[in-house]
Amino acid sequence: MRIGIVAEFNPFHNGHKYLIDCAKEYMFTQQLFGDIIVVMSEFFTQRGEIAIVDGYTRAEEAVRAGADLILALPYRGSVAYSDDFAKKSIDILIKCGITHLIFGTEDDITYFDKIYRKEQRHSTKLEIKNLLKTGISYPKIMQKIFDIPIDNPNFTLAYSYYKAIKNSKKNITLIPIKRKGQKLNENTVIDSEFLSATTIRNNFESDIVKNHISNNMLQAMKQNSITENNFYNLIKYNILNLGIENLKNIYDVSEGLENRIYNCNIIAKDYYELVDLISTKRYTKKRIQRILLHILTNTTIYDITEPINHVRVLAVNKEKTAIIRQINNNENIQLHQKLKKENARFFKHDIKVSRIYTIMNNKRDIFKENIKLV
Amino acid sequence: MRIGIVAEFNPFHNGHKYLIDCAKEYMFTQQLFGDIIVVMSEFFTQRGEIAIVDGYTRAEEAVRAGADLILALPYRGSVAYSDDFAKKSIDILIKCGITHLIFGTEDDITYFDKIYRKEQRHSTKLEIKNLLKTGISYPKIMQKIFDIPIDNPNFTLAYSYYKAIKNSKKNITLIPIKRKGQKLNENTVIDSEFLSATTIRNNFESDIVKNHISNNMLQAMKQNSITENNFYNLIKYNILNLGIENLKNIYDVSEGLENRIYNCNIIAKDYYELVDLISTKRYTKKRIQRILLHILTNTTIYDITEPINHVRVLAVNKEKTAIIRQINNNENIQLHQKLKKENARFFKHDIKVSRIYTIMNNKRDIFKENIKLV
Repeated sequence: MRIGIVAEFNPFHNGHKYLIDCAKEYMFTQQLFGDIIVVMSEFFTQRGEIAIVDGYTRAEEAVRAGADLILALPYRGSVAYSDDFAKKSIDILIKCGITHLIFGTEDDITYFDKIYRKEQRHSTKLEIKNLLKTGISYPKIMQKIFDIPIDNPNFTLAYSYYKAIKNSKKNITLIPIKRKGQKLNENTVIDSEFLSATTIRNNFESDIVKNHISNNMLQAMKQNSITENNFYNLIKYNILNLGIENLKNIYDVSEGLENRIYNCNIIAKDYYELVDLISTKRYTKKRIQRILLHILTNTTIYDITEPINHVRVLAVNKEKTAIIRQINNNENIQLHQKLKKENARFFKHDIKVSRIYTIMNNKRDIFKENIKLV
Repeated sequence: MRIGIVAEFNPFHNGHKYLIDCAKEYMFTQQLFGDIIVVMSEFFTQRGEIAIVDGYTRAEEAVRAGADLILALPYRGSVAYSDDFAKKSIDILIKCGITHLIFGTEDDITYFDKIYRKEQRHSTKLEIKNLLKTGISYPKIMQKIFDIPIDNPNFTLAYSYYKAIKNSKKNITLIPIKRKGQKLNENTVIDSEFLSATTIRNNFESDIVKNHISNNMLQAMKQNSITENNFYNLIKYNILNLGIENLKNIYDVSEGLENRIYNCNIIAKDYYELVDLISTKRYTKKRIQRILLHILTNTTIYDITEPINHVRVLAVNKEKTAIIRQINNNENIQLHQKLKKENARFFKHDIKVSRIYTIMNNKRDIFKENIKLV
């Protein structure tokens, strides 16, 4: 058996460790032993934010916590709508031969089944299509039709994983794990078994946080104190540089949004004001954050839709390095342990993304970086 | 009579005041009264540097010193080879009806005549063409054929003005003024009647400098202490962003220089190191500085060759505002006193340049700026 995990580990904390423990326990109770493979965002995350610690460090932590192989989800998978993020991540895991997918959720699979069946109906599809035309955001539509609370990333991501597996038509077992502690985007330090990653990111100087992440992770967070605002000048510059005409070609900039972005950019004083000014009821902040990253990285529709057949390995359990060869021999996907001139062509966009990230965050060039054997 | 001056006034100093005084004296001795019209670089200069004080402030100073009308030379004229800089500047002045051109030089017109005649010969043209092919820089060729000392911007610029007038075939009188004091690019504070602009820029904290520029200019310089290095992150970013493929389209990036720029950018630690790394015997530092500005402003060959038929007025002597109407009525060129939505299309590239300049130099938006009536 091979259990897959879709992750961001931003930062890696006790809740993530708990998920890996559950995967191990599942294997144990089934008396089946195998591998835990994780696909993880590297520089930028699904919500359009900057990863607070670099990918190699986060991957190393995950292997220390019991995962076997950590793969870097390319930019075009990581900075994406939850459905797209899930689809691209799970596609990689499937190509790596997973038989199970484990994920945190507060809901039952039967709940997902119910919604999925309703969503597949022709009449519902038509209703969604018509509502989208009126300018209502997708989360609001989900609330309206399925009575799903708005801004509930726990549900949204888990349901996206469910759909990706369902749509793949592969025989993959879902292992939903009841989430404990805070919801994904909660933000207050409480005396809880598990704090959310958001709480940890926003409060990493707090004493309580120390009990939820490793010392290693805490040190890495303290060293790497950049925020989206550090990239503000580059984003502001590239909006001016592209101009309204070329902003149109940036992925997800549609329906006249290019004018709005250009004009708000003239007025805004910092990154956060820019996001606030551009976002509306129709364009959620998360979407705008992602679009600003697409502008920063000059990501067009062509970069997003390229299929993912090559993936970099960030870390591996040193006793499980054979998995890499096994996966590569199957030829569904190629895993690369090091960037070289010979394979760089498969990672053109990610190398650019990495070098742009490096301007503000003086980390090692990924070209010189190697997988972590833990 | 209408006397033209091509200038950068970076910053405006006593040497510039002296040139304007000479123009006035010339008018007086000829018993002909008229106007002094200046065309001046605005944000970036001919040597590929950042103007140390904004255009409106420098223009205001020049009118206070006796000039009548100051026009902004568009980016495509200001950041250019000396011949191109001179040609575009003088073309604007000719369209404004100048009858005379005054300029500083250490050489006689007869010397320019001699070199010009030699340069016009078919055999010399062929020799220059062949030498360029061998990879020798243009200044070295000028030295080889005409025995002109290398890195002599005094000669180079004056001779470029001479050629521009000559090639225009207009009947314009040249008024060469013997330069006093330091050469253009000298850099030491000496007890001289006139210091070079370079000396003043590099030593504006020095006491002696105070006697060479107005207090107003000195204050503006102190407030505006940005250097090319402040734009380094944006330049570094855009080199990564463009990639080797798109760097090729940037003006003046030719013959495989795109690879050199891309690769040096990966290694360089700051702007000055980047210039040093890219420049060679063939590619002078000045040329590389200009190219880096073209990268910063995404300037392609198409931006450079667009004809200049619209120019912004930066400052005017309040008793001479009628000149603007007179020039506009002649319809050779249109002078604009304010940027508005209606005329912005004529200044697209310069508005972009201005906004990029503004990212690092928190000056007022030129869109909101108005000419200075002095």
